Amino acid sequence: MPHATAAILSIGDELTLGQNLDTNSQWLSHRLTALGVIPIQHATVPDDLAATRDAILRLADVADLVIITGGLGPTADDLTRAALAAAMNEPLVEDLEALAQITAWFASRTRPMPALNRVQAQRPRSAAIIRNDWGTAPGMQARLQKRDRQGASDAAAPLSPAFTDIFSLPGPPREMRPMFEASVLPHIKPARTVRTRALPTFGLGESEIATRLGSLMDRDRNPTVGTTASHGVVTVRIRFEASPQTDPASASRAIAEVESKARAALGSYIFGADADTQSSVIRDLLKERNLTLATVESCTGGLLGELITETPGSSAIYRGGFITYTNELKQQLVGVPAATFAPGGPGAVSRECAEAMARGGLAVTGADFCLSITGIAGPDGGSAEKPIGTVWIALASRESVHSRRFQFSGERSNIRDWSARSALAMLRFAIIGQPSLALMRQTASHPTA
Amino acid sequence: MPHATAAILSIGDELTLGQNLDTNSQWLSHRLTALGVIPIQHATVPDDLAATRDAILRLADVADLVIITGGLGPTADDLTRAALAAAMNEPLVEDLEALAQITAWFASRTRPMPALNRVQAQRPRSAAIIRNDWGTAPGMQARLQKRDRQGASDAAAPLSPAFTDIFSLPGPPREMRPMFEASVLPHIKPARTVRTRALPTFGLGESEIATRLGSLMDRDRNPTVGTTASHGVVTVRIRFEASPQTDPASASRAIAEVESKARAALGSYIFGADADTQSSVIRDLLKERNLTLATVESCTGGLLGELITETPGSSAIYRGGFITYTNELKQQLVGVPAATFAPGGPGAVSRECAEAMARGGLAVTGADFCLSITGIAGPDGGSAEKPIGTVWIALASRESVHSRRFQFSGERSNIRDWSARSALAMLRFAIIGQPSLALMRQTASHPTA
Repeated sequence: MPHATAAILSIGDELTLGQNLDTNSQWLSHRLTALGVIPIQHATVPDDLAATRDAILRLADVADLVIITGGLGPTADDLTRAALAAAMNEPLVEDLEALAQITAWFASRTRPMPALNRVQAQRPRSAAIIRNDWGTAPGMQARLQKRDRQGASDAAAPLSPAFTDIFSLPGPPREMRPMFEASVLPHIKPARTVRTRALPTFGLGESEIATRLGSLMDRDRNPTVGTTASHGVVTVRIRFEASPQTDPASASRAIAEVESKARAALGSYIFGADADTQSSVIRDLLKERNLTLATVESCTGGLLGELITETPGSSAIYRGGFITYTNELKQQLVGVPAATFAPGGPGAVSRECAEAMARGGLAVTGADFCLSITGIAGPDGGSAEKPIGTVWIALASRESVHSRRFQFSGERSNIRDWSARSALAMLRFAIIGQPSLALMRQTASHPTA
Repeated sequence: MPHATAAILSIGDELTLGQNLDTNSQWLSHRLTALGVIPIQHATVPDDLAATRDAILRLADVADLVIITGGLGPTADDLTRAALAAAMNEPLVEDLEALAQITAWFASRTRPMPALNRVQAQRPRSAAIIRNDWGTAPGMQARLQKRDRQGASDAAAPLSPAFTDIFSLPGPPREMRPMFEASVLPHIKPARTVRTRALPTFGLGESEIATRLGSLMDRDRNPTVGTTASHGVVTVRIRFEASPQTDPASASRAIAEVESKARAALGSYIFGADADTQSSVIRDLLKERNLTLATVESCTGGLLGELITETPGSSAIYRGGFITYTNELKQQLVGVPAATFAPGGPGAVSRECAEAMARGGLAVTGADFCLSITGIAGPDGGSAEKPIGTVWIALASRESVHSRRFQFSGERSNIRDWSARSALAMLRFAIIGQPSLALMRQTASHPTA
């Protein structure tokens, strides 16, 4: 039976009590939506056997697919195995293959398996184990008969003939995500065909983008166009839905037509497509040109370097850099003139300082480009003239130095994040030959020959 | 009737489809838990009238308090008003005070109220309006009679005499949060007193911690003890619950007694309390001693500096550092001997290189401590001898250099994250006089005089 709808169940006291933020439901929903299965409900329950069992039964009644995360650890409050068995009205049995796998996992780390972990090899009798190559908690795959929709939550309700596929995965995202891709994805049979295209942008606000896209964003179109925002990156999402019989070429054409209109409206603010990040795009642009990059950071304290190097293969284009957090290190390591910091001088948060940092970093490392950031991330250190959120960013190349002032808002982490991402945007604009393209929250710009 | 339990309902297609991350449920749960009301379920439904009405009825049956966020906008897909009215079996009426308030909100921005927004003044007949000073969507406060728990979801079930308090708030956090504090909080009557204490640890696995805590983690105790893990930090959470009449001193004693047992079991792996982070604790330890820190990073690319500087006030203790991503910069900036990288030499991922980086960083910056990290974060670059996840971390002080080898697992981001956090743990152990305390995933340790 094809999967038209899905429900996501997250389990854990740490979630219901608000100690941890559930990101799994969003991640799974996003993946399922892209595949053509519509998530119709999320639910979160505590580490409680009856609550978990009831939620499994209730969600299985309304959705064709239920994905459960959490509650697969080795301790007494990890109850998903028992709850699924109760929902299926089956006993738990020990899975020998799972036990061997857990034992091997510990052995490969030259540790004996703690007695506690043995319980992780259990599963309801008719369930199958989902292999976990990223931790000790195997997942489970099961099939549950739907109860009749009338009186859905009455445990005594008559059974309907339809079945719901249940997948149980561990809670930690770094285990859950690869297990979903490796072992759940192959079992999903979407009831409709969906094609999506994501166009990530940086530098424009969400309402400016909506204004530029205009009627493309009307809700009754197909493809639909929507935007989502995260860390300043606003992603334009194009989505085409059709029956599984639809000609793939016509789906591609429908997407391509909308994409070309979006590109016309947003120009170079679109920095890539689908899974591209600012960092991966910069790696590719520099690599193609055989150019290298260095960084000199003050208020971001290493975040810019971290963003650049989160992309595999960044060593081909990134030489490294400096975290010149004190004014002494700004002078000593990259040669910012002492006068910058003297009374009456422009100070550490200034065009002069940012440009000197970028020039000095370029000279010392021998890179082709050097980005520098200096600003006031807060919560202290602001003044009337330079309020919290004032940030100067400079980009030095062999030929020129270009700098911009920004006024960011929000908390320390937000100001640092926007600073690093705006720096990456300045570099990309320079590489693609549009060094003057304005960025959101920019309050001054100094191109110099 | 006092509020013992709560349920949180989030409404919106953008949530069920995974386009946006729901942070309201966590925020509300955290607030309610601290007040002594236990959130027992979160649910998320799309912009759908029947699904929202059914969720309101279901949650009202099981919780004493239901807080709803979202679906209060002015457009056709904002259906919370209608769904609440349907759940209460009442008509919607226009609230004149709410209408005046929305009109005034637009007037204060010198705009006329769009006709569309008039619908935001509606409420179920017996509901009250919650004032919104941060946007155009008023909230609603209502009371719903519970249906009998037997056959809870059967709409025809007999009514029980108990009532559930319902609060409906807009979805945007910057409107929802202040409205909760101003207008929901005064109506909450917690059925119990709750005291909590969090003890964050780093360096032990969750199952090792459970083993050490033993019966303290039994589920039927009060205080209860549980653990949550995020980015390698395992937090021990102590929670004491009692009647509102309980003597506050006895609550404090109960928490303190369990805390002291947990501290005895986990020793210096506990690095702080409540909201402390590794970074904030290190800032305080160094500041008290008037000592400073520098960093030299290779595979973490700036992440260690970023973690140190995410804490406000870090400029008092952090001088800065180097991101020596290439071998050339390792030699040029911090004086790692060229022979390290020559054929037959130990290479960039070695004790020798890590120690030279730390020593060099210390000498150049003049800091009291210097941490260095060099390793293989993957996905490429591993070998049989040095597989992906092999990381050397060194700590240099004026007196000594101490280094450890680790074997981390997982993805690039995970290996980098554990590397930076293990470096912070090594520094903390050294400052508190326990430089040899072993860390999880450590495979070698070299204290040198």
